[in-house]
Amino acid sequence: MAQLYIGIDFGGTNLKIGIFNRDMDLLAKANVPSGDDLTPDTVVKLMVASSKKLLVDTDLSFENVCAVGVGCPGQMNLKEGIVLSAPNLAFKNVPLRKMLIDQFGKPSLFENDANAAAWGEFVAGSAKDVSDMVFFTLGTGIGGGIICEGKMIHGYTDEAAELGHIIVYPGGERRCGCGQYGCAEAYASANSTAARANDALEDGTASSLQDIFRGKGSVTCKDVFDHAKNGDKLATEIVDGTAETLGLLCVSMLHVTQPQRIVFAGGMIAAGNFLLDKIVEQFNKHIWTMKKESLEICFATLGEDAGIYGAAALAVDL
Amino acid sequence: MAQLYIGIDFGGTNLKIGIFNRDMDLLAKANVPSGDDLTPDTVVKLMVASSKKLLVDTDLSFENVCAVGVGCPGQMNLKEGIVLSAPNLAFKNVPLRKMLIDQFGKPSLFENDANAAAWGEFVAGSAKDVSDMVFFTLGTGIGGGIICEGKMIHGYTDEAAELGHIIVYPGGERRCGCGQYGCAEAYASANSTAARANDALEDGTASSLQDIFRGKGSVTCKDVFDHAKNGDKLATEIVDGTAETLGLLCVSMLHVTQPQRIVFAGGMIAAGNFLLDKIVEQFNKHIWTMKKESLEICFATLGEDAGIYGAAALAVDL
Repeated sequence: MAQLYIGIDFGGTNLKIGIFNRDMDLLAKANVPSGDDLTPDTVVKLMVASSKKLLVDTDLSFENVCAVGVGCPGQMNLKEGIVLSAPNLAFKNVPLRKMLIDQFGKPSLFENDANAAAWGEFVAGSAKDVSDMVFFTLGTGIGGGIICEGKMIHGYTDEAAELGHIIVYPGGERRCGCGQYGCAEAYASANSTAARANDALEDGTASSLQDIFRGKGSVTCKDVFDHAKNGDKLATEIVDGTAETLGLLCVSMLHVTQPQRIVFAGGMIAAGNFLLDKIVEQFNKHIWTMKKESLEICFATLGEDAGIYGAAALAVDL
Repeated sequence: MAQLYIGIDFGGTNLKIGIFNRDMDLLAKANVPSGDDLTPDTVVKLMVASSKKLLVDTDLSFENVCAVGVGCPGQMNLKEGIVLSAPNLAFKNVPLRKMLIDQFGKPSLFENDANAAAWGEFVAGSAKDVSDMVFFTLGTGIGGGIICEGKMIHGYTDEAAELGHIIVYPGGERRCGCGQYGCAEAYASANSTAARANDALEDGTASSLQDIFRGKGSVTCKDVFDHAKNGDKLATEIVDGTAETLGLLCVSMLHVTQPQRIVFAGGMIAAGNFLLDKIVEQFNKHIWTMKKESLEICFATLGEDAGIYGAAALAVDL
């Protein structure tokens, strides 16, 4: 009788659900719209109903499910099993762990979404052969996850690895949403990369991006990368700035937890080796010369599924 | 029969030795000059002979010694128990753990000196009531130690917590000994604090420090702090710069491993609350505004003994 594990990535407006065996093979997955106005109770009921439906649809038995793991956004107290608050969600001091256990009737846990994705890459993706890893997601913001000697770093009140808020440029003119100046996130997230381009375009800087900017009022991060690949000067400068910020983050994280591998994930890695090569180049430019470093910098391999892999893998350890 | 533990801090030119009971009470200590030209074998023999003498002098029995811990400088492979190299020492691929075990005839280990000092403060000093801590030593350079959920972070090849080499000022004009530009160490170590003052004095900047500079050719870090306390403008600017760097390090480390407490140690903390208050002020200036942080920033309390406490405490866990 196969032992099954459910991994759920709760993104706010939809649920990704994966069914795994103990070897972390993904047996089935589903994507279920939720909406940001559901109550916590409704969300958990939707998780249970959608998981059961997915199991039935794939001829798997709910009885064989050993445990459930959920990745979710927000501030949380993992020891107590409570989601303290979550951006854009009606979650306030929600005893999510107890609700999951009660509703699924199985051992359950939840974890910060970035940590869950990091754990997914760690157990089944780009870092499955190492024990020390640092993980960055490059999306709206910059999220992070840190694994040392095979253990996730949570911090005193479960707020470790807010790696986008490392101050890379003290006194930098870009203010982050968090209130700090010079955060990595304010320069190198997908949104900030686009914002830096839009600011320059607004100022009238010559660029092949100007047509899009004039037509649509703004350019996207993808636009910036596309035009950089075609040799546009402004777009190249913007991308190089993003890569410098990320290279500097790699230098500093090497000196802090000394990972064997640093993994980048999130929408921006669609830019491929064009971006990766620039990050590595910036790392090599800024890293110390007193000895050669063997740090590996790479892109995530599980894509959007990292969260469900990680959540399920955490459930295996319950 | 009391269980005893020996903690040794091997500084290169001298050995500090402490005898502890299992509760980490320091029963006896000694300071033994070694010299930087001794062979590893001679150093270990000196450790054994000096420890035995200290035990005899204090009516304690070598038979009651359960284990031995040593803090030492350099690059090391802790899993293999080898010191790969050590600055200013004739140590190259030295199987130190095996040598300690053979010569003492007791379970033995060694640890990086900054980590040993961090562990000392963690088990018996300024952070003995917390489980997540970051430790900085402010001396010739800036050393570090990181403890997460009660465990030391070592990194992939035992080189984690090189916290002085976090790049705080990218493109900064001060080059660190490591080859990087903008390292915290190049701005805020005791040596760099003095160097920044000496550069300004060399340029003819008006300051009450000029008398010392002209008389002795250079000022010390202590001179800079003394004159800042007396209100000298240049000295105050230099100290404020040091405090800004350290405050920025605190912000970034909060976002990385989220310690409950950050502890500063090393010669520079002799400046007392005059320095501590400035570091806290800079932290508060740069930290995010999106929520209130409860991070505690304080000075170490074990002084020069942190290393022997930490080394002995690590031996207790053998």
